[in-house]
Amino acid sequence: MREFLLIGIGAGDPDYLTLQAIKAINRVDVFFVLDKRAETAELTRFRRQVCEQFATDRPWRFVTLQDPVRDQGQERYTSVVEDWHDARARLLEQAIRTELEEGQCGALLLWGDPALYDSAMRLMEIIQARGNLALDYRVIPGITSVQALAAGHRIPLNRIGEPVHVTTGRQLAKGFPEDLDAVLVMLDGDLSYRKVMEEDMEIFWGAYLGTEDEILISGPAKDVTPRIEQARLTGRAAKGWIMDTYLLRRTRRSD
Amino acid sequence: MREFLLIGIGAGDPDYLTLQAIKAINRVDVFFVLDKRAETAELTRFRRQVCEQFATDRPWRFVTLQDPVRDQGQERYTSVVEDWHDARARLLEQAIRTELEEGQCGALLLWGDPALYDSAMRLMEIIQARGNLALDYRVIPGITSVQALAAGHRIPLNRIGEPVHVTTGRQLAKGFPEDLDAVLVMLDGDLSYRKVMEEDMEIFWGAYLGTEDEILISGPAKDVTPRIEQARLTGRAAKGWIMDTYLLRRTRRSD
Repeated sequence: MREFLLIGIGAGDPDYLTLQAIKAINRVDVFFVLDKRAETAELTRFRRQVCEQFATDRPWRFVTLQDPVRDQGQERYTSVVEDWHDARARLLEQAIRTELEEGQCGALLLWGDPALYDSAMRLMEIIQARGNLALDYRVIPGITSVQALAAGHRIPLNRIGEPVHVTTGRQLAKGFPEDLDAVLVMLDGDLSYRKVMEEDMEIFWGAYLGTEDEILISGPAKDVTPRIEQARLTGRAAKGWIMDTYLLRRTRRSD
Repeated sequence: MREFLLIGIGAGDPDYLTLQAIKAINRVDVFFVLDKRAETAELTRFRRQVCEQFATDRPWRFVTLQDPVRDQGQERYTSVVEDWHDARARLLEQAIRTELEEGQCGALLLWGDPALYDSAMRLMEIIQARGNLALDYRVIPGITSVQALAAGHRIPLNRIGEPVHVTTGRQLAKGFPEDLDAVLVMLDGDLSYRKVMEEDMEIFWGAYLGTEDEILISGPAKDVTPRIEQARLTGRAAKGWIMDTYLLRRTRRSD
């Protein structure tokens, strides 16, 4: 039996690490990294820094895997994603078998929280279902970019009596959800809110949340959109990548 | 000017504290506690333990305020809640004025995350709007019971392409949200899901999440409801209070 930990390391600020995450990090023999793209090398460096700073109790090593490329077609989205998860799970299984001995502990350090728009738990389930490798895993929650956004802007995620609805840019592009007045959006490469925004909507936008490069912009959506677009261009040019999150909502008279 | 910190201390496990929260705790002169009810004395004790364990850099003290009682009528819900917030804000303002000197730092230690179903930011805004007290505040995010639930059950909060929708028992009782197949429910004193559950729904339920008394129950909603009801009765009898959270969703064929 091998042990595996899915450790949420929070969104951007090393101080977002929980004590539980730090204790977990100190039990790990091998940190596996599914390296996505050259432009996210900074995120991989962040993971390495977290290990160097906090994994002080025992020897450990880093194993970097070249993440399979995902078909970017928008057709048959679910099955494309499922195929990609299968490919990643096979890759990770192979790496665990080769790099992690029986009785050792492996881990993935995951941006934000392993339960929110992250595939690591699915990879574990696929590996367990394949049945080639005895693997027990645990999940350590972490602070998400949505929480970093709310803290940065000092806004509650919900107004009185309101649900909290987190979705993706891809979903939002299909329309503002019925019966709701507020949505939180992650994983939006394209500022999809511009397709659905209404006259009275306000936005609370953040990029590189929790890091030294954090940018926060808020105001009436129609007024601040040019500033957000500019900030995205500038950020992308400077760093090669951008990760942003936002709350888009209809203004209430009492706000 | 007085400084005020709204510090998320996570949901139940002291190891959910982030390094940011611990650093913040060590800057505080006065911890204010809005004590809700006798039955939540355990939560107040938990806050005090957090201070005793982590606030080691400087002297601090605890100021406990008797929380105003909220009208429990379901009529005019929003204005009842607003009135209650006003009363709490006036109480807290008065306490800050009397107990916290200029240049000192006060704090509220908040269960979960200050941005999720918590009124502390609204209290700060009301105090600032009243204009009697110069107060600057910051927000420190924390691990929520929703994240503890997902980690405990080892389930992603969203399936592929699915939004994450967090709501209250009160909202859910009005009906399962249209266009959604999954909801996360907090603040449900009454297992409201029983009013809206359908034949093919599954539930992932947790109480006292993150604590030594954590209970996790999952399965087809119609089958496990008696076990959940029993666990609630037993828990309430033993501890005098219960806090539970759950994910209720339609089963997908691929699950």
